[in-house]
Amino acid sequence: MTLSEKQFRPVAVPAVSVGGFWGKWQDAVCDETASILLDRCIAAGMLQAIDPDQPSPGVVIPLHNMSPSKPESERKARVSTQMFWDSDFAKSIETIAYALYRKRNPELERRADEIIDLYEKLQQPDGYVNSWFQRVQPGRRWTNLRDHHELYCAGHMIEAAVAYFQATGKRKFLDIMCRYVDHMLTVFGHGPDRLAGYCGHPEIEMALVRLARTTGNQKYMDLSKFFVDERGTQPHFFDEEAARDGRNPKDYHFKEYDYCQAHLPVREQKQVVGHAVRAMYLYSGMADIATEYQDDSLTSALDMLWDDLTTKQMYVTGGIGPSASNEGFTDYYDLPNDTAYAETCASVALVFWASRMMGRGPNRRFADIMEQALYNGALTGLAMDGKTFFYDNPLESTGRHHRWKWHHCPCCPPNIARLVASVGSYMYAASDDDIVVHLYGESEARLELAGGAKVHLAQQTAYPYEGRINFSLGLTASARFTLSLRIPEWAEGATLAVNGERLDLKAIEVDGYARIERQWEDGDTVVLDLPMALRPLYAHPKVRQDAGRVSLMRGPLVYCAEEVDNGADLSAFRIGEAPNVAATVVLDDLNGAVALDLDVRRNSVEAWGNALYRGTPPEAEASRLRLVPYHLWDNRAAGSMLVWFQAK
Amino acid sequence: MTLSEKQFRPVAVPAVSVGGFWGKWQDAVCDETASILLDRCIAAGMLQAIDPDQPSPGVVIPLHNMSPSKPESERKARVSTQMFWDSDFAKSIETIAYALYRKRNPELERRADEIIDLYEKLQQPDGYVNSWFQRVQPGRRWTNLRDHHELYCAGHMIEAAVAYFQATGKRKFLDIMCRYVDHMLTVFGHGPDRLAGYCGHPEIEMALVRLARTTGNQKYMDLSKFFVDERGTQPHFFDEEAARDGRNPKDYHFKEYDYCQAHLPVREQKQVVGHAVRAMYLYSGMADIATEYQDDSLTSALDMLWDDLTTKQMYVTGGIGPSASNEGFTDYYDLPNDTAYAETCASVALVFWASRMMGRGPNRRFADIMEQALYNGALTGLAMDGKTFFYDNPLESTGRHHRWKWHHCPCCPPNIARLVASVGSYMYAASDDDIVVHLYGESEARLELAGGAKVHLAQQTAYPYEGRINFSLGLTASARFTLSLRIPEWAEGATLAVNGERLDLKAIEVDGYARIERQWEDGDTVVLDLPMALRPLYAHPKVRQDAGRVSLMRGPLVYCAEEVDNGADLSAFRIGEAPNVAATVVLDDLNGAVALDLDVRRNSVEAWGNALYRGTPPEAEASRLRLVPYHLWDNRAAGSMLVWFQAK
Repeated sequence: MTLSEKQFRPVAVPAVSVGGFWGKWQDAVCDETASILLDRCIAAGMLQAIDPDQPSPGVVIPLHNMSPSKPESERKARVSTQMFWDSDFAKSIETIAYALYRKRNPELERRADEIIDLYEKLQQPDGYVNSWFQRVQPGRRWTNLRDHHELYCAGHMIEAAVAYFQATGKRKFLDIMCRYVDHMLTVFGHGPDRLAGYCGHPEIEMALVRLARTTGNQKYMDLSKFFVDERGTQPHFFDEEAARDGRNPKDYHFKEYDYCQAHLPVREQKQVVGHAVRAMYLYSGMADIATEYQDDSLTSALDMLWDDLTTKQMYVTGGIGPSASNEGFTDYYDLPNDTAYAETCASVALVFWASRMMGRGPNRRFADIMEQALYNGALTGLAMDGKTFFYDNPLESTGRHHRWKWHHCPCCPPNIARLVASVGSYMYAASDDDIVVHLYGESEARLELAGGAKVHLAQQTAYPYEGRINFSLGLTASARFTLSLRIPEWAEGATLAVNGERLDLKAIEVDGYARIERQWEDGDTVVLDLPMALRPLYAHPKVRQDAGRVSLMRGPLVYCAEEVDNGADLSAFRIGEAPNVAATVVLDDLNGAVALDLDVRRNSVEAWGNALYRGTPPEAEASRLRLVPYHLWDNRAAGSMLVWFQAK
Repeated sequence: MTLSEKQFRPVAVPAVSVGGFWGKWQDAVCDETASILLDRCIAAGMLQAIDPDQPSPGVVIPLHNMSPSKPESERKARVSTQMFWDSDFAKSIETIAYALYRKRNPELERRADEIIDLYEKLQQPDGYVNSWFQRVQPGRRWTNLRDHHELYCAGHMIEAAVAYFQATGKRKFLDIMCRYVDHMLTVFGHGPDRLAGYCGHPEIEMALVRLARTTGNQKYMDLSKFFVDERGTQPHFFDEEAARDGRNPKDYHFKEYDYCQAHLPVREQKQVVGHAVRAMYLYSGMADIATEYQDDSLTSALDMLWDDLTTKQMYVTGGIGPSASNEGFTDYYDLPNDTAYAETCASVALVFWASRMMGRGPNRRFADIMEQALYNGALTGLAMDGKTFFYDNPLESTGRHHRWKWHHCPCCPPNIARLVASVGSYMYAASDDDIVVHLYGESEARLELAGGAKVHLAQQTAYPYEGRINFSLGLTASARFTLSLRIPEWAEGATLAVNGERLDLKAIEVDGYARIERQWEDGDTVVLDLPMALRPLYAHPKVRQDAGRVSLMRGPLVYCAEEVDNGADLSAFRIGEAPNVAATVVLDDLNGAVALDLDVRRNSVEAWGNALYRGTPPEAEASRLRLVPYHLWDNRAAGSMLVWFQAK
């Protein structure tokens, strides 16, 4: 079997225990975020919304359409974020499930069980379960897949059900969702009484793959493939659906179906467009199907989309979707820093997609970006204490952008929480006789190869702050397999040794992974050393917002400057081509993060005088600039923040 | 009498004829804009709105409040741009009046007369005249001065009436408005049955000064002073008015009264805040009152506000008010280029204010900014052919910002049109024995001094494209007076000669004006030479959006680059500290504008490769950059535009 014929499926979350950097984050989720998510969902009214014994809450959050810039007369009530409440609840339960792997918590488990019991009560005899369309708009089931997030909610509930089953062994939620999907199997498909449709907001696709992998039910897998295959085909389902529902298809508020990536059949899509989270969720589902069906036509479409995103439309943080108006993509190379939308969910979803792109084999083309999005675009969405959140993630702030306690559209908090709590499953992957380490970090993985060999693989490391990773292997018996370790593209000069013997990295590197194929023995050690030099990064000359600017990374971390360390006027700092790190400082008030103190120049505000404009450039003076990891900004005193500095 | 005790009043528009640069613009207004304004006002329904013999049009444009970002439930119908229609009609008539000075046009005059006849028919016996509150909300007269633009509309109608009287000698409109103001004199004031109020949108203040100057009626002047003096005093009129009207004063959608500059008594205001046009109109009225009453307390408040605006809150174009959400000011030094609101009306109004700041004496501190705002921030609002308009004026465009034919809030088109058509009155000013030239341009002014001496002052010049200005004086008799000529701060190395004899500029310069005090004879000549070097301009280091950037001016003109001349990726160009002008080119397709071809460097897009980010800065290559005057952008092929270039 060649590498390209292999199928790499994610390692189950309980198979990995993390410590160090991620351990602290997971503790914050276990100790704070998990219960906060439930508290805030319930405070919003979600418990009442799903409880058939309570009166329907009705429309709590006003119906709105998505184009608030239109004059009032053209606006028609359309959707409410309340329609997505099932998904918010589900992602919270998924987070709790992962939290329970790490730390048993009977009270949290009881609260989750209570919600699951209500869903059981809510579920209709035919299997259908959706709180909005049962309790607020009961006549509207399956009438508007384009706008109403119906399958999207089901998808998140499926993911939660799988996670909860794996965490607790309790089947109730899983059974509820299997019954629901069994019902879907009678609704969707080709033929006179079937809907050949799919959801306006993808998510169900990857959820069904997960359900199929867990239950072994191929019909679930095939339904996912059906949704993928139908999307964007002609005659267009959304047109027909609207006509059946008495709506004018032309009234679509986003005008074109590229908003929800239904403008073309998925295999013909070449450009990443529309709503960023929808795009990432769709591509994630497509990648799962490509892996499961070894579908080269999907893989090659995805390859093109990957390039499109990562070479023309991605912030250096791995943030994506610059625009608030469509929560998504605009023009190539349009990457405004201060108004960046770069939704937390979108970077979380980019991690999902990147990870799934390696279902057919490890490749740092995907893994490097996965890591970049994880540590920067995504993780920034969660405060260090796990209690507050960012929805949008600008790369520059004048000091007015702050973490909030909750949001009228609370999709991001449980999304980043479930990612953090399950991060171990993104670190490792396994095929029949392959173990792959995609991400580094203090952790222990308990893996099993096709032949039954059990491998206990431990990483001892202060990564991402230090570049040395000590691996130790525990084996019940000697075994031959390939251990693949990612060598990030940025890690120039990396070294690798097995049992103290240095390997020739170049000779064994395939797609950016060092492939160590050998007979492994219990107690073997591997030492990987990744240089942690500060790296200036410049943007493509077409990125007008970054022209003449430079950003700084160290390892996988984007660094930024905050007002609390550097005073205001951060754009007065000027970074030379080879910035000198005068000191690295461990900051106890930032979870032991490594801050970098740089010798730089700074345009003098004091020497300038009062004029707003003048004929000579500002005087530059020697200065010191403290950088901290971008994902930790706004965790101390409020103030301005900057990622892209004046270069010179 | 010292200079500071003098009062400089504007020269009447008919006293100046302009040719050259401004002549072409005035021809466009006479030949196109003037009638287009009426056409579009009428197409919107404005004629029907004021005609008492037609049914009331009702609410044509939906009522809205000014915070569209609020959830629907919190939105309450509040105002409609239709409430301002009288002002749009009025500014159009004012434009027509000025156009008639330049070119008689019986058809235009007939159309204006027809509108004036309707206003005469509409006027109530008590003198009140406002189409909205007579025909759409008849019970709401004087109930909400804060939001309803009632006195604002009256102000524009007064200005139009004065202009139309001066242009045609016809008194009808003037008499209508005098009757209306006589009615106001019974409504406003102190005492039990009077309103001690003022308009949420200033304008009436300067209009009443103009009416008083024209009619000699001191009561009109005093009413203006009353509005100025009452503004922002406690107990607050807007609070009391709201309470009387059954509204909660706290429901104000802009939260604080600084939006309409009524947060403090005007003499205590130190910071330029809120809606930009309202601010400029208020300060203009204050400056008029300061001049007429020689009110030092107003003058010193205005001096502080002037500094605040021009040293912390003004674009290099003289554009002001960066934010769309309040159509106004935000934080000091917050000057985003691509999202700049910088409403045309705001720069027009800055010209008004600057001009009025010189009511107590010429000072280039005001005149330089007046010229900068006139040629750049304001004039950009009108297309070269007089047919289309800009409302907001960004300093950077990716190619999506274009001139439009009309706007749901059509305040800008007639505002820039009336300014262009009356520009002569901003060029010259006169006191008893002083003649001042604030602005240069091919023109002839017919002036009269206090002693009765008549002075015919002509400028022969290709300004603003060339810096030599030849003045000739025609006098019926020899006369002693001071001719003051502005020496712009940028004109380093300017020279001045009278009858061929060079003067020592330094010796006679007062507040940036060369004061030539002598016995003048018929046929005297003055030659002023202003160097027209290209001037790089850098912004204060606190302006984050311009950090590492440079803009370019020549004379009073800001220059920009357009895609049509330079291809896309304008931010790839890099301008050194002493840019070399390789050629000046006269562009026939831009009204004979002088374009500048610069030898520059440019970041190579071609050499960069495909990566979105990389460790080395872009390669720079020699290139040629064509600059055109900013006010002429988007007059040829659509495309991107840039004012602030990478500096280096």
